Amino acid sequence: MARINDNYLKLKAGYLFPEIGRRVAAFAKENPSARIIRMGIGDVTEPLPPAVVEAMHKAVDDLARRETFHGYGPEQGYEWLREKIAKHDFQSRGCDVSADEVFVSDGSKCDGGNILDILGDGNTIAVTDPVYPIYVDTNVMAGHTSGPDERGEYGGLVYLRATAENNFTPDVPKQKVDVVYLCYPNNPTGTVASRETLTKWVNYAKANDAIILFDAAYESYISDASIPHSIYEIPGARDVAIEFRSFSKLAGFTGVRCAFTVVPKSLKGKTRDGAQTDVHKLWHRRHTTKFNGVSYVTQRGAEAVYCDAGRAQVRGLVDFYMSNAKLIREGLTSIGMKVYGGVNAPYVWAKTPGNTTSWQFFDELLSKAHVVGTPGSGFGASGEGYFRLSAFNSRENVEEALRRIKQTLGTVA
Amino acid sequence: MARINDNYLKLKAGYLFPEIGRRVAAFAKENPSARIIRMGIGDVTEPLPPAVVEAMHKAVDDLARRETFHGYGPEQGYEWLREKIAKHDFQSRGCDVSADEVFVSDGSKCDGGNILDILGDGNTIAVTDPVYPIYVDTNVMAGHTSGPDERGEYGGLVYLRATAENNFTPDVPKQKVDVVYLCYPNNPTGTVASRETLTKWVNYAKANDAIILFDAAYESYISDASIPHSIYEIPGARDVAIEFRSFSKLAGFTGVRCAFTVVPKSLKGKTRDGAQTDVHKLWHRRHTTKFNGVSYVTQRGAEAVYCDAGRAQVRGLVDFYMSNAKLIREGLTSIGMKVYGGVNAPYVWAKTPGNTTSWQFFDELLSKAHVVGTPGSGFGASGEGYFRLSAFNSRENVEEALRRIKQTLGTVA
Repeated sequence: MARINDNYLKLKAGYLFPEIGRRVAAFAKENPSARIIRMGIGDVTEPLPPAVVEAMHKAVDDLARRETFHGYGPEQGYEWLREKIAKHDFQSRGCDVSADEVFVSDGSKCDGGNILDILGDGNTIAVTDPVYPIYVDTNVMAGHTSGPDERGEYGGLVYLRATAENNFTPDVPKQKVDVVYLCYPNNPTGTVASRETLTKWVNYAKANDAIILFDAAYESYISDASIPHSIYEIPGARDVAIEFRSFSKLAGFTGVRCAFTVVPKSLKGKTRDGAQTDVHKLWHRRHTTKFNGVSYVTQRGAEAVYCDAGRAQVRGLVDFYMSNAKLIREGLTSIGMKVYGGVNAPYVWAKTPGNTTSWQFFDELLSKAHVVGTPGSGFGASGEGYFRLSAFNSRENVEEALRRIKQTLGTVA
Repeated sequence: MARINDNYLKLKAGYLFPEIGRRVAAFAKENPSARIIRMGIGDVTEPLPPAVVEAMHKAVDDLARRETFHGYGPEQGYEWLREKIAKHDFQSRGCDVSADEVFVSDGSKCDGGNILDILGDGNTIAVTDPVYPIYVDTNVMAGHTSGPDERGEYGGLVYLRATAENNFTPDVPKQKVDVVYLCYPNNPTGTVASRETLTKWVNYAKANDAIILFDAAYESYISDASIPHSIYEIPGARDVAIEFRSFSKLAGFTGVRCAFTVVPKSLKGKTRDGAQTDVHKLWHRRHTTKFNGVSYVTQRGAEAVYCDAGRAQVRGLVDFYMSNAKLIREGLTSIGMKVYGGVNAPYVWAKTPGNTTSWQFFDELLSKAHVVGTPGSGFGASGEGYFRLSAFNSRENVEEALRRIKQTLGTVA
């Protein structure tokens, strides 16, 4: 009988979001009249920017006529999109990133998992705690860990604790690691990394020959001008970092599917024999062999994000969600809750009242306020006692959710 | 320094199609006035069916309004699409396939590579020769092989020779294998598998506890009513086979990106301890963890393929390409060439004249007729001395290409 990948059996049952879905569905079934407000999964709610809509309609029309039809495109994305990404997202900020270092894909979640294809076994891998679960789960699947302990942590990974004490921004580790996942602005805590913090990481990576996997999916939510949007704003980062970006939260593309990953040509890895090899070449081979490009319609939509109208409209979307974040911060603070994030990121990371666990708080908000958030413990052991609320919602829902939360909790602490 | 996946270094330099691209680009540069006709890569040329265009426009409009906006969809695809696939592609043919066994994805090339994520090491894996290169390359990347020998074949794989003697339909192997890749209608040879052939394979898989990875990307090109479109038309196949399907060649979706994979719930694999485990659960976990769903616009377009108008339009597209295939078959036959395929598949597999190698023939057609085909040897050692021509083109190009080929070759043999 064909052998399966046993590493999958090490995974804890139930990825966080399906478990939330299960509890919400069960509650909804028992309480059919409850109007549930979902602030759990970070999914956008506002329509696509008009410039994107127009570009996508035009792209569909292109496919409707033989003269303008497009079949297979380059697996790495069309040149016209890669050029705009390189120029507007990187070169305009002084980053040395060229179009052929940009790989357009159908999602950062996909890229963040697939990147392990080209990395070998035997690396020491560091993740933060709390963490976006995909980083951990894909390493488990790839056989880089043992099974979970009683805290749900996998042997073989180095966990960097992000706590209130270090402002949810863990320092570089004392030990040597080969690969480290960083996400700034952070999901789930909503914190950001200063230029100083990122410089420490780049220097650490250089000193330890490590690769930084930098997830910047939320960079467009940065409002503080001193905070870098890309790790390539830090000198030397080209030699040590891969950056993941997405149109999902930038332009409301969660259902349209477009992202990109930057793999600089100067980034090196080590073969079994100790020889240096270009990581860019490996990713290029992976991307062209195991992927077939993003929908032409989607890529034309993404391109429109960079035109003047598109940029203004996207700015409007981000501002809208960030006004929600401000309301959430202020609303929770007004009843005595301690909150973090939500200033340069669309997530508010709230301390649960007293000794309430994350899942207890989840169940309380769901059953009494009919509001869904994300239990912090779902992101890791250090997330216990925290709760994530997403700013992705209509204004009406945010205001109503806050009214209900205030009514349910009264004044906290 | 971070270790890379050394298995990538075993890959032969240059995937077939980039190498073709390189030679064509070089020729075009030196001969800027030559009007090159591309019949190499199997990429569609005709516009999307009007029903699909209409559905995609409507879907874009859905995303343009808050009330009908769609963010993240189910990673496995929307229920309305999975239901239609299960009904029209399988249940209507008497196959026992349910909607929750269908996983919608952005491409069969992706799925065909990604499936190895859930299969373990230590399986004996069989491929045909010639073969769609992705099956081989992804196994090399996954570390299931040693490096290539002088024929370009990788140690550790079982090659099933497809030759004129066995009508390009290799028999089940004498030895026991755990995983076998089959592609019918075949790329590149254009041959099909009869019900009897597929029954032998299903029986072999049952007897040997093997898993069949069945690529049916070209099933819509079958014109002979006795040929199965799905392996699930064979009794017992549910217990031994995974089937890959695509909208690419069916509905002109190579630039739109939609495919699906069927993983029956009754399919089992073996853990390290020898316990049986559900392959469906593993693929579900992989698909939800490392993929984020297909574009909503694309899925609406795919759904339209199943409406009455869509079905008729798709039929028209297939008929159009198959008329091209007939012209190619007849044209090459008329000058004395020996051809295979092109009756139930959009590929014609031609014997090169005399002792001409595949790449010699490629270079001759390119330089003299300005026609691009695919050298058979690029698909494997047994493809040497053959040449693949694709029926995906305009009628005008096909006729012009045949005129030039006849002029170049004169009468063969």
